[in-house]
Amino acid sequence: MKMSKGVEWAAHACAVLALLPPGSALPGEALADFLDVPPPYMAKQLQALSRAGIVTAQRGVAGGYRLARPADAISLWDIAAAVEGSAPIFRCTEVRRNGPCGASPAECPGPCEIAAAFRSAETAYRQALAAVPLTDIVAGAARTATAERKQRITEWIEREFRESSREWTSKRN
Amino acid sequence: MKMSKGVEWAAHACAVLALLPPGSALPGEALADFLDVPPPYMAKQLQALSRAGIVTAQRGVAGGYRLARPADAISLWDIAAAVEGSAPIFRCTEVRRNGPCGASPAECPGPCEIAAAFRSAETAYRQALAAVPLTDIVAGAARTATAERKQRITEWIEREFRESSREWTSKRN
Repeated sequence: MKMSKGVEWAAHACAVLALLPPGSALPGEALADFLDVPPPYMAKQLQALSRAGIVTAQRGVAGGYRLARPADAISLWDIAAAVEGSAPIFRCTEVRRNGPCGASPAECPGPCEIAAAFRSAETAYRQALAAVPLTDIVAGAARTATAERKQRITEWIEREFRESSREWTSKRN
Repeated sequence: MKMSKGVEWAAHACAVLALLPPGSALPGEALADFLDVPPPYMAKQLQALSRAGIVTAQRGVAGGYRLARPADAISLWDIAAAVEGSAPIFRCTEVRRNGPCGASPAECPGPCEIAAAFRSAETAYRQALAAVPLTDIVAGAARTATAERKQRITEWIEREFRESSREWTSKRN
């Protein structure tokens, strides 16, 4: 039982987008470069995040992706569900109805004890992730990063803005 | 992100084994028949449960599988981990170390905030399943089963014992 790597990439991409100045955006290629992941895979996660209303594709000068809502209104569960879906982890095939002693429909008004316990555990899992806003991720990362690394990230973001503006202008002329 | 169907089968099989009189056992084929699942798949789950020390294969007259320890000392997490493994759901590939602004090893003394939050949610999931002993599953199922179904299950178990004893005796003679 594994979560796709896409969730990790998507979460890190959202953390980078949370650092952008208001109104600005980053191209998917820049995010792929920042995280050193193949651009097609990064694009796939960004599309999933976009479909879920977590990021927005912005056109025009310095176009690209930006968060669709404030970082404190985006949780790790939102990101995981966007990429991995929100279907139950445990698959109940109603085994209790099977075989020579199978339960009748009348005996199954609700989920069986096994399915109910797995559902309840999954709720605990989701609630734990839903309680972590992107702002907490960014604040935690900022606490452990050195001043030198923070400076490097700021300069990288500024350079990406300059380059995507220039590319856009040269395409238009 | 899906759990294998084997977990459901294994959990139901353990619930059946919890109904057996002390010292008795059921062949894997009988459990497969009870749950109406293919015998090879049932055998695979029973092997996983056996490797994890949850069931024991008993030889001799009326041989087969029985619980290896009391039902109140077997949790749903024990069963899920036996079949599905206990590897983390979230795969951390240390994305923070990647790219032009990657963190140095010195900046990564512990897991990043994203990995830590997923680990914490997984702990909540495991603890919720670990808090459900097999005895609770059986007691809950007994509350919703009709007297007629309980009788049918008792008779099925008794018939299986008679048949597996007869087969064993005929093989020996």
